Amino acid sequence: MSLFRLIPDRPDVVQDQNRPNKKGTFRDWLYITIFQATTVAGKIFDVGLFILILSNIVLLMLESVESLQVKYAAVFQALDIIFLVLFSIEYLLRLYCVRSAKRYATSFYGIIDLLAILPSYLEFFYPQWHVFMIVRSFRLLRIFRIFRMVKFLDESRILMFALIRGFRKIVVFLFFVVLMAIFLGSLMYVVEYEHNSGFNSIPQSIYWAVVTITTVGYGDVAPVTAIGKVIASFIMILGYSIIAVPTGIMSASVIQEEKRNRGKRCPHCHTGGHIPGAVYCSNCGEKLPS
Amino acid sequence: MSLFRLIPDRPDVVQDQNRPNKKGTFRDWLYITIFQATTVAGKIFDVGLFILILSNIVLLMLESVESLQVKYAAVFQALDIIFLVLFSIEYLLRLYCVRSAKRYATSFYGIIDLLAILPSYLEFFYPQWHVFMIVRSFRLLRIFRIFRMVKFLDESRILMFALIRGFRKIVVFLFFVVLMAIFLGSLMYVVEYEHNSGFNSIPQSIYWAVVTITTVGYGDVAPVTAIGKVIASFIMILGYSIIAVPTGIMSASVIQEEKRNRGKRCPHCHTGGHIPGAVYCSNCGEKLPS
Amino acid sequence: MSLFRLIPDRPDVVQDQNRPNKKGTFRDWLYITIFQATTVAGKIFDVGLFILILSNIVLLMLESVESLQVKYAAVFQALDIIFLVLFSIEYLLRLYCVRSAKRYATSFYGIIDLLAILPSYLEFFYPQWHVFMIVRSFRLLRIFRIFRMVKFLDESRILMFALIRGFRKIVVFLFFVVLMAIFLGSLMYVVEYEHNSGFNSIPQSIYWAVVTITTVGYGDVAPVTAIGKVIASFIMILGYSIIAVPTGIMSASVIQEEKRNRGKRCPHCHTGGHIPGAVYCSNCGEKLPS
Amino acid sequence: MSLFRLIPDRPDVVQDQNRPNKKGTFRDWLYITIFQATTVAGKIFDVGLFILILSNIVLLMLESVESLQVKYAAVFQALDIIFLVLFSIEYLLRLYCVRSAKRYATSFYGIIDLLAILPSYLEFFYPQWHVFMIVRSFRLLRIFRIFRMVKFLDESRILMFALIRGFRKIVVFLFFVVLMAIFLGSLMYVVEYEHNSGFNSIPQSIYWAVVTITTVGYGDVAPVTAIGKVIASFIMILGYSIIAVPTGIMSASVIQEEKRNRGKRCPHCHTGGHIPGAVYCSNCGEKLPS
Repeated sequence: MSLFRLIPDRPDVVQDQNRPNKKGTFRDWLYITIFQATTVAGKIFDVGLFILILSNIVLLMLESVESLQVKYAAVFQALDIIFLVLFSIEYLLRLYCVRSAKRYATSFYGIIDLLAILPSYLEFFYPQWHVFMIVRSFRLLRIFRIFRMVKFLDESRILMFALIRGFRKIVVFLFFVVLMAIFLGSLMYVVEYEHNSGFNSIPQSIYWAVVTITTVGYGDVAPVTAIGKVIASFIMILGYSIIAVPTGIMSASVIQEEKRNRGKRCPHCHTGGHIPGAVYCSNCGEKLPS
Repeated sequence: MSLFRLIPDRPDVVQDQNRPNKKGTFRDWLYITIFQATTVAGKIFDVGLFILILSNIVLLMLESVESLQVKYAAVFQALDIIFLVLFSIEYLLRLYCVRSAKRYATSFYGIIDLLAILPSYLEFFYPQWHVFMIVRSFRLLRIFRIFRMVKFLDESRILMFALIRGFRKIVVFLFFVVLMAIFLGSLMYVVEYEHNSGFNSIPQSIYWAVVTITTVGYGDVAPVTAIGKVIASFIMILGYSIIAVPTGIMSASVIQEEKRNRGKRCPHCHTGGHIPGAVYCSNCGEKLPS
Repeated sequence: MSLFRLIPDRPDVVQDQNRPNKKGTFRDWLYITIFQATTVAGKIFDVGLFILILSNIVLLMLESVESLQVKYAAVFQALDIIFLVLFSIEYLLRLYCVRSAKRYATSFYGIIDLLAILPSYLEFFYPQWHVFMIVRSFRLLRIFRIFRMVKFLDESRILMFALIRGFRKIVVFLFFVVLMAIFLGSLMYVVEYEHNSGFNSIPQSIYWAVVTITTVGYGDVAPVTAIGKVIASFIMILGYSIIAVPTGIMSASVIQEEKRNRGKRCPHCHTGGHIPGAVYCSNCGEKLPS
Repeated sequence: MSLFRLIPDRPDVVQDQNRPNKKGTFRDWLYITIFQATTVAGKIFDVGLFILILSNIVLLMLESVESLQVKYAAVFQALDIIFLVLFSIEYLLRLYCVRSAKRYATSFYGIIDLLAILPSYLEFFYPQWHVFMIVRSFRLLRIFRIFRMVKFLDESRILMFALIRGFRKIVVFLFFVVLMAIFLGSLMYVVEYEHNSGFNSIPQSIYWAVVTITTVGYGDVAPVTAIGKVIASFIMILGYSIIAVPTGIMSASVIQEEKRNRGKRCPHCHTGGHIPGAVYCSNCGEKLPS
């Protein structure tokens, strides 16, 4: 299933595969520094990059606060350009030092790195794109690599495998929730629209139904008629019950995904996830160690 | 248990069973076009129908927005009639081309198809029925069939089996939740009604209790007295804890339903529960059927 | 553990145990009519009683609506007395016709039956006790017995066993939630009380913390300072994560309780819940059927 | 993993390890009285201490209510000093009577005991630290020890082991939730900030996104534009679905942690996982140890 491609590879595996062929050159040194954190230079680069990304995100947030924007407009603009230049240089260096530039550009992190600088260039033509620079926050995903948290990366892989395994069930479930919101929203529209300006159209009522089924409950729209409150109570109890459905799906997925990562491992073919008490490997038929 | 009838059959199974006896006739061609999506004509029919249903739902939503209703009343009315005629013809064709009209009319999709056109006819006598045309949204359930998403249909069958398996437990649970809402709502009425217009009657207080237990929390009614806030805190923590009950039920249901659908069984020693892709039995080492 | 006493026995078991010794007398006929629904008279009695309880609850709700109370005060008072007389007669008949009156009076349903008429008598002395008649709603628990829904009763027993099994874990969890609410509420008091009248004391802030951790979120109290919003965001994400704890506990409980009711049953000592693949009974050591 | 240190040891184990070497002295008697609840004096001490802590917490709460603070300022101040003296004496006695003062001071309860008196002394220099005395509420954790609820303590240990086992997965999950809140909050800022004062900056919009994803839904900020409501509906359904992720993780953790604590193991054939109360091995029929 193509969804599995979305899972980032373990960094140690990817990076060795895309290392330049000639060792010892400047390009190879650059590759090790930028992509691997095994040398001192590499560690400095990683931590520095992480600080840059974090401060860039804080900057973008502060820019949106009007009182600050008025005061420090010039500073903000200057910093924006500096960050753009730095991130662009980093992207070009990454493209330069890998064995296959295309392979990096189409990888999980390669696409995020591109998305992080693209809006800044588009901004020259469409100023309203400015805010999309926030997409840079996704570069924080590198955090797991930077701090050598391979175990955390493994956990996130298990989580994503579980999510993908439960993906079809969750899509089916969400489809039913949307249908239910459409139907129940329309029903409430019939009941309430003459007495309540919050239910003045079907789309508005569907919005209310989503707010209620998901148990968010802003309260900006709330039923006022007696019959409306009865139906609303019914919808709430429904939403409260069906939240159990995706949870049950995920529980089953996670439990199964963990079993797969636990279990005896065959010493011949390295297939894992054998059930407890298994005597023979389910892949090659060899005897398992007891 | 009769609830199992609610699960739609896999379309490929149903449709072959209700295909006309005489092959090659116009009626048979019509059947294949309308009910099966294996021919080019069938695919065009399915996609066209899906677009019609979707645009009809959008139309119904827009009709309910007053500013648009005032402007385009004539257009809306004309489109309503066109959709009614199209859907009626489709229903009659379906009735005509199947081997047993009664069988189709009483099937899962047959009832939905009828419900989709009925409110439009009733509207001539009772104009307020207009909005119930939204029931047409349920025809979107055909989406899984149209896009040949048999795997999604399988998942929805597993989900529905799990729901039905947990049905009795969920009914018992909801019954207790309703009893609790009645009791706790009345208690809050005693405590709050002299100080808070939001608790001016027991039904109103029960509505509040449902809003709170389900953790929706609109905030249109909220306790104001000190003792009321203490009781409300207790109710919230209660609701927060008991949401675990249906979730636990569903988790157990889904896990069991998946086990039932997973797991090759060894033909030699009848050991079950092999992991997907297992080639040899984990108990006796014999080859498993692929 | 004494908590297990709270689970109502299966009605068929209880009732035969408390049947009068002399068969064929009027007292025995009364017992069968009131406690067992196997005869026509018994069925009429059960359904009639259920309708009485339901209409009494509706009456109590309507009494609390002021506009109705003003209009129909006399009618409401007369109906209250009629219901009190009817339920009192029923309670006395139940006491009369069982073999051991004490045994019935101290049973699960006996206590509920008493609680249902007690507030009405207390009302003569303390009029404000009127509203506690709502406790009669608990008599609706007889619904499972009346409609012979033994399977639903079995499910509710499984649910209660699961709840009791997870009881200690849930108490520990709730204790931590309360401690957390006290601590986080006090923290928010320090941050917000100078800027926000909603956090004007620690108890009020703890109320807010409970509303937030349980994801109810009325919005009657909400942070206004920047630092307050940051802490509130942290509390929300915390509450959102820890809701998983009781859910995980209940899932484990329900799954285990279901296993216990499934599984092979020993043909000698009737012990159930043997693990799949069990060869010998875990209670008496006899061979199990394969 | 160092996180496991956070789990308090079973009190009976810890205390015997830190008992003074010389038995029968006053210091040893003090140790038994303060740390163990096996003697009459020890039981009186424990219950008395628990009442002191509880009344101190109530006092701290009442102090924060302005109307009471104005009236009873002198009383409150006097009581504060009395509690400080009592708790300080208790801490010193604890340090005195254990074999190794350092060992107690760095233990789980030792740190909490210190934190409970520290803010009171800091208050002389920084009056605003007064409110942090609420940290004393954590001393209530002794409740499990005082009432000899060893079983509850065991349950809390199982819960904490499950939490720690699922810790990495929950960290990864929360990291994704935060990233999502940043991205979706920024998106809503773009859509709403011109029409809605609630979305006047990105940090404010991120706060709204957290409120919505966690299904708290205060309603102090809510979308007003049509496109904003559509995106908000999407975010709600997303939050509603992903709450299943930590729940699935915890379910898997608790189930696994319970398996580990359950299940006698047969001394002959080493088959594990016997149901509680099993007398004979389900595999070989031999008697199990009781």
